[in-house]
Parts: sequence; structure tokens; C-alpha cells
Amino acid sequence: MFSILRNARTFAQRTPARSFHSNRILNQEKMKASILAILYNGFKAAEEEPRLLGTVENREWLISQGHEFIVSSSKEGPDSDFQKHITDAEILITTPFHPGYLTADLFEKAKKLKLCVTAGVGSDHIDLNAAVKHKVQVLEVSGSNVVSVAEHVIMSMLLLVRNFVPAHEVIERGDWQVSDIARNAFDLEGKVVGTIGAGRIGYRVLQRLVPFDCKELLYYDYAALPQAATDAVKARRVEDLKEFVSQCDVVTINCPLHEGTKGLVNEELLSHFKKGAWLVNTARGAICDKDAVAKALKSGHLSGYAGDVWNVQPAPKDHVWRTMKNPLGGGNGMVPHYSGTTLDAQARYANGVKSILENYFDNKPQEPQNIIVGLGKYETKAYGQR
Amino acid sequence: MFSILRNARTFAQRTPARSFHSNRILNQEKMKASILAILYNGFKAAEEEPRLLGTVENREWLISQGHEFIVSSSKEGPDSDFQKHITDAEILITTPFHPGYLTADLFEKAKKLKLCVTAGVGSDHIDLNAAVKHKVQVLEVSGSNVVSVAEHVIMSMLLLVRNFVPAHEVIERGDWQVSDIARNAFDLEGKVVGTIGAGRIGYRVLQRLVPFDCKELLYYDYAALPQAATDAVKARRVEDLKEFVSQCDVVTINCPLHEGTKGLVNEELLSHFKKGAWLVNTARGAICDKDAVAKALKSGHLSGYAGDVWNVQPAPKDHVWRTMKNPLGGGNGMVPHYSGTTLDAQARYANGVKSILENYFDNKPQEPQNIIVGLGKYETKAYGQR
Repeated sequence: MFSILRNARTFAQRTPARSFHSNRILNQEKMKASILAILYNGFKAAEEEPRLLGTVENREWLISQGHEFIVSSSKEGPDSDFQKHITDAEILITTPFHPGYLTADLFEKAKKLKLCVTAGVGSDHIDLNAAVKHKVQVLEVSGSNVVSVAEHVIMSMLLLVRNFVPAHEVIERGDWQVSDIARNAFDLEGKVVGTIGAGRIGYRVLQRLVPFDCKELLYYDYAALPQAATDAVKARRVEDLKEFVSQCDVVTINCPLHEGTKGLVNEELLSHFKKGAWLVNTARGAICDKDAVAKALKSGHLSGYAGDVWNVQPAPKDHVWRTMKNPLGGGNGMVPHYSGTTLDAQARYANGVKSILENYFDNKPQEPQNIIVGLGKYETKAYGQR
Repeated sequence: MFSILRNARTFAQRTPARSFHSNRILNQEKMKASILAILYNGFKAAEEEPRLLGTVENREWLISQGHEFIVSSSKEGPDSDFQKHITDAEILITTPFHPGYLTADLFEKAKKLKLCVTAGVGSDHIDLNAAVKHKVQVLEVSGSNVVSVAEHVIMSMLLLVRNFVPAHEVIERGDWQVSDIARNAFDLEGKVVGTIGAGRIGYRVLQRLVPFDCKELLYYDYAALPQAATDAVKARRVEDLKEFVSQCDVVTINCPLHEGTKGLVNEELLSHFKKGAWLVNTARGAICDKDAVAKALKSGHLSGYAGDVWNVQPAPKDHVWRTMKNPLGGGNGMVPHYSGTTLDAQARYANGVKSILENYFDNKPQEPQNIIVGLGKYETKAYGQR
């Protein structure tokens, strides 16, 4: 579960100039950065599949960068490698798929921390206000998995609306009851589909929906899309959230988790959903009220719920979302958090993390779209800082 | 399982003229047509869901047409309602989801048969050469479920490429092994996707793939698409089938079953597939060699196989396609034959059947695209008659 890798790297030949984009002061002849990376365990899968770059086992791409590295999956509780080593780390690398939760308390202990890098998209496991206060930069690889997640959203919509999971289960157990499946199977064509959040992922979802001849595409967001973007997908903005959900047959959540979106889809909002609507959430589990969703599915008020994000990850064995069903025994499309960590996405975010580290050490500017928190201030509006 | 419904209908007020499109001679004051409909049993599902129009139970839309009706799901063997009543039927209504197989032998017994109507798309369960010989017209509701099936194809591609089924199973059984799932999960973006058949369904598949930014879209068909259609989806035709499959990461089959396509995807053709390709077949099960597909999946030569069609329907309990897996324990996306019988599609094909019956009795022309076999001749090239 744990490995320490020490590699020295010479910085003598590099420019000592300090740029706006880096808070690393290069006033020493030689420097070693202490980097803590919290990744997930791949076990046998990682041994057999070298493209699983998000795993502790396949960290070679990371350590080839040099520096003192601690790579571990141990992240819970005061004795975890995460909490023990955060005190010495200059750089923290985490993934959304196995999040190391960097709370305000831990920030107090992380005296040497300068940079948090999220290998993927979604940095809500970092207390961003604390990062601003402590002048710790937070970066993510913004483009690395937006397509992967958007594809997962389309897949999830289709499999809920078309009632795939019960149909596959019928086959696996040796049965053939077409009517039991067909009675709750519909087409996406002709439905009203709306996204909460029309940013990098939400907009890609809208793009992919265009040829499905939905009745209408809607979006809810804090700002209107540019006219050209609206025209391309023919989506209509609804400014009131209750009005928005009341018009949708399918709702998909594609906004970040922050103080303004936590618990957004609660019992009250769900009461405004159309009866029998389908809900897909690949954003963050905590945007939905766990028990309210389970209750709505069980009653049939929701026909289906699918996604790969959970309020706690890994989800406990008895998490109600694992087994909740609609009254016809279907409507559950849950998976572990992996939509953004396909092998294609892992190659992209590994390259992105390398590039962020290189920029940091070389005092080069970071890609603006990757910066969530710059030096002491938010650099994005995506996390609710309007 | 069985019901006989007798309803008289007066034809006196109708025109007795005989059109090219009908072979019914209206020279009697009153006529009763004997109609045999082979539908599937819906049991409790049909009682609870009146929109299940393809079931024996919810036949009301059909019998409201009048005439002498026999509606049954019993279709196998000489004592089945199908074989007993085909001798007296003037009109046979069947569905592809629970096909009554009308063989050349049965045509010999069906002396009064004038019209076969397929409630759906795909009339390969009717011996079309025998229909030509006996001057029995064969019609289907050609537009009724092309979108439904195209959506099922896109869903199936995504769930195979993204490794959905094992991911959902991990959650259901209380586990959380992201690496076991991610190691065989990819994006559709950047892949080469090809369809065997670019007709009404295959072309809709290509249209829906456009925004997914596949590396390339290919098609194999007996004729080239019109230039405007090609431009709209930017698909390239490959004229040699072996060359075609050797270039595809994902292959989807969207051609009819006929003498020229039966067993098309056999061990020899599979050997030309890319290693690790995914195959989606919602056309007809018998287009693939059952055992060759199972062997290719088991060896990992195919990474996945999905679809809703089987060489025999209902599929036997021990059919190898029910439980076959790739070496990593996934890659099976099989369901019973229902992709074209969503509730949305059932409304369309019920209306289509009504309309075909009305045209028949009123001596009005049928919609040309619905006619598979006209009076003594094929009216389509789709079934291999070039």
C-alpha cells in the first residue's frame, strides 16, 4: 500500500526567476521537492495493465519526474500516509476517484504545502477557501476527462430510459420476459433532456444529444451560454431551477460540488421533478441528498438514477444507492467512480500532471483553464465564487 | 394464452374497385376477414401497463378494427394456434420479438392467406420466396422502430467500450475496485466505428455517432450512400468486408437477415477483426455464428458482444450468449429482443399495423417503404434481392 521513492534532481541549470504563476522560490543551488501522491491501489489489474496510470503500482510515469516521492493509497484517519506525510509535502497529488480529503484542519498542519494537483477534474476534496487563505495553489487537468464523463452521461441516460439493467439480468438468469422489460423501456427521442451545468462536461453532453431528436434540450447555469454555443445545440436556458426540473424527462447534473450545490437535489427539489423522470449524476455524489434520491426511486417518483459518484468514496458496503430500485425492480445504473478514468483518460491526465509539475518547477505559466486557486485567490468561477 | 374474437364489419358502403395494391376482391355485400395475430404474452406486466400493445392481453387496439380475430402467443409445433389457424387466415400479423416462423411448408397449407403484416421491422421469419410464389403480400411498419434500435446500438457500444456491466456488478455486490473496471474501460472518442448496413437503422447510428468525435466512421453496404448523406455523417465506404472489419474498433450489424447474410460473421470473418474489437448486433442473431462469437469473446479476440437478437427466440436457457464473457469477466451486453419494442415504438407500430389493415380493406395504396413483397414480386432490395 505504501512506497517511498527518493530521487534527486538538479535545478542548477534552470532559471531562478520567479514567475507570477509559481510560488516556488528557486534560491538554492539544488532543490528537492517533497511530493505526496494519493492514488488508488490497482493490485493485480495494475500489474497486468500498465496503462492504469492512476494506480499506486504504475507510478513510474510520475517518479520519472525526479524529486522525493511518497506514493500511497492510505488516506483515512490520523495514521494514514496521507495525514502523516502531508506535514512535509510541498506538492500534493490526488485523484477524484480515490480522493484524499484535504480539510481546513489538515491545511493548518501542511506548513510546507505549495501546490495541490488533481489528476483529473474536480477538486472539491480540497478545502478551497483554506487553500486561498494558506496561499496554496490548486490545479487540475481540466480537459483530461470531460469527454469521458460526457460519454458516461449519454450511456447512463440511454440505459435508464431504455431499461437495460433489468433486461440484461433477465438474460443472465435464464429468463425471457420481453413484456416485463418493454413495459418500462422508452426512447430518448422525443424526451425533454436538461443539464444542471452547461460547462465543459455539460455542454459536451448537449452536443452529443443533438442527433437524438429530443423534444427539447434545456440547461440551468449561473450564466447564459454564448449565442454561437446555444445555436449549435439549440438548447434553451431556464433560470429557475424548480421550473427547469419540472420540464425535464431526463435531468443530468454536470456542475462542481461547492457550498452552493451541496444537497441541491433534495426532497424539496425532487418534488418538482416530473413523475417518472430519470436522473443522471456523474458530477459529485453530495450534490444529491442520498436518502431523498433513494426514497424518490423507491416510490417511482424517479424512474431511474445512474452515475458513478457517491457522497463518500469508496462507498460503504451498505450504501443505499448500491441496491435501490424503482417499483418495477429496475432504474439503478450505479457504478464506482471511474467514468473519468478510462485508459484513454488516464493517459491524458498523467500527461497533464507531468506538464503542471514541469511548469511549476520551470517557473513557467500554467494553462489558465487548469488553475482553480492561484496565489491566494480563486481563478475560476466554477466552484461557486461569483 | 388464446382468444378468439369475432366481429363483423360492413363493407357495403366501400368502393368495390380493386387496386394494384390490394389483392382482396370486394365482390360481396358483407365480408369478414379472418385474421391471425401471433403476439407475445405480457402476463401481469400487460395488465398493469396498457401501453404494452405488442402483447396478447392488450389486443384491443387490433380488434377495434373489426373482423374475425384469433390472437395468440402459441406458435411452436403442429398443435400450436399458429399452425392450426394459419389454414383459415386471410391475414397474418406477427412481431419480430416473438416470431411466428412462416415456412414454405406452412405456406402450402395457408390457402386463404393474402397478407402478412409484421408489427415492427424485419420480416425474415416469413419465407419471402414462398410469399412471392404464393402471391402473398408481406408488409412491415418500416419506420416504426428504426430510431429505437439505433438508440439501442449507441447504448450498447458505449456500455461495451466503457465496461459498464462489470462496473455495475461490482457495486451491486458491495465492492469497489476501480482498477478492475478501469483496466478495460475506454472512450468511444478516437475509435474507428463501422456499420455493416447503412440503411434506415445503420444510417441513424452513423448520425448519432457524429458528435462523439470518433477517429473515423465506416460503412459496408451493397450500394454507396448518396453524396449528401455521406457528407452529413462523413462516413467512408469500404467495399471489401474483410478489409472493413480489419479497420474497425467497433463493428455494428444493421442489415437484414437473408440468404446472403446468414452466418456472415463466422470464425473466418472474425479472424479479420482487430484484436479486442467490440461487436454490436441488434439486426438478427443468425447473421452471426453463435459458437464462433462465443469463442472469440472467451479468447479476448473480441472484447465485447452486445445486442438483443438471437438465432432462436426465445433463447434457450443454456444459450451460450447468455453468460459468455471475455477473459476479464466482462464484455457481455446481451438482452432479450426488445430494442424495437419500447413503449414509444409500440405506439408507432400499432398505428402502422392499423394503417396497413385500413389500406388493405379500403383498397388504398400502401406506403411504398412498408412493402417487402408485393403481388408476386419483391418490392425491396433490403432482403438480398439485387
